[in-house]
Amino acid sequence: MFNIGDVYEQSFTITSETYGHFIQLSKDRNPLHTNSEFAIEKGFKGIVMHGNILNAFLSYFIGECLPTKNVIIHSQEIQFKNPVYLNDELNFKAEIDGYYESVKSIEFKYSFRNSDSKIVAKGKIQIGLLQ
Amino acid sequence: MFNIGDVYEQSFTITSETYGHFIQLSKDRNPLHTNSEFAIEKGFKGIVMHGNILNAFLSYFIGECLPTKNVIIHSQEIQFKNPVYLNDELNFKAEIDGYYESVKSIEFKYSFRNSDSKIVAKGKIQIGLLQ
Repeated sequence: MFNIGDVYEQSFTITSETYGHFIQLSKDRNPLHTNSEFAIEKGFKGIVMHGNILNAFLSYFIGECLPTKNVIIHSQEIQFKNPVYLNDELNFKAEIDGYYESVKSIEFKYSFRNSDSKIVAKGKIQIGLLQ
Repeated sequence: MFNIGDVYEQSFTITSETYGHFIQLSKDRNPLHTNSEFAIEKGFKGIVMHGNILNAFLSYFIGECLPTKNVIIHSQEIQFKNPVYLNDELNFKAEIDGYYESVKSIEFKYSFRNSDSKIVAKGKIQIGLLQ
């Protein structure tokens, strides 16, 4: 079911609905994410989307997009490399770079790229297979 | 404003509202998080809360609880150590374990503990200070 080198791709868009759900969830109204004047003054094109919206996309990827539902996340790591803006369409790509059958553990490396093919975030996820 | 060893504490509860917002945001309806029969069969007490809800709490901590709003997350790392259930009250504790003034960068180590004082998750966050 899983092999080293297996690649998964998925498209995610941060719509105003996504953004609104994240603010309701997190209550993070830091001005970088809510005040475009502030964000522009800090050198961005407009309000910057919360990086942790991408972590919610990782939850969907692990929970819903793999060939089995018997999974649980053990650890995650994410590096934010470029800003993500409202309505950005992100191309997510994950590759299995470790599969340890005896301990039922899988490691993915992944990246999110924007429509300019720039990496906006990348990292690793370790999951376990539930028995 | 920031010193190595500074400690921040915060309490977070995963209410059914929090859980609902996360499902709307992520669309992750994996049975571990939505089907209590499935979760119990897998050895848990009931449906397990999505780990990435804790990452949304980290967003709030960085965006709203520090002595300045001029912050941006550079990277995060989280390890899930024990399950979190609906209505669990979590004690979050973060400590500054690196402050690099010349590059305006701060590193925190953090943990979330449940009401039994068990660590449910821990990790590190690196942030930058915006000029």
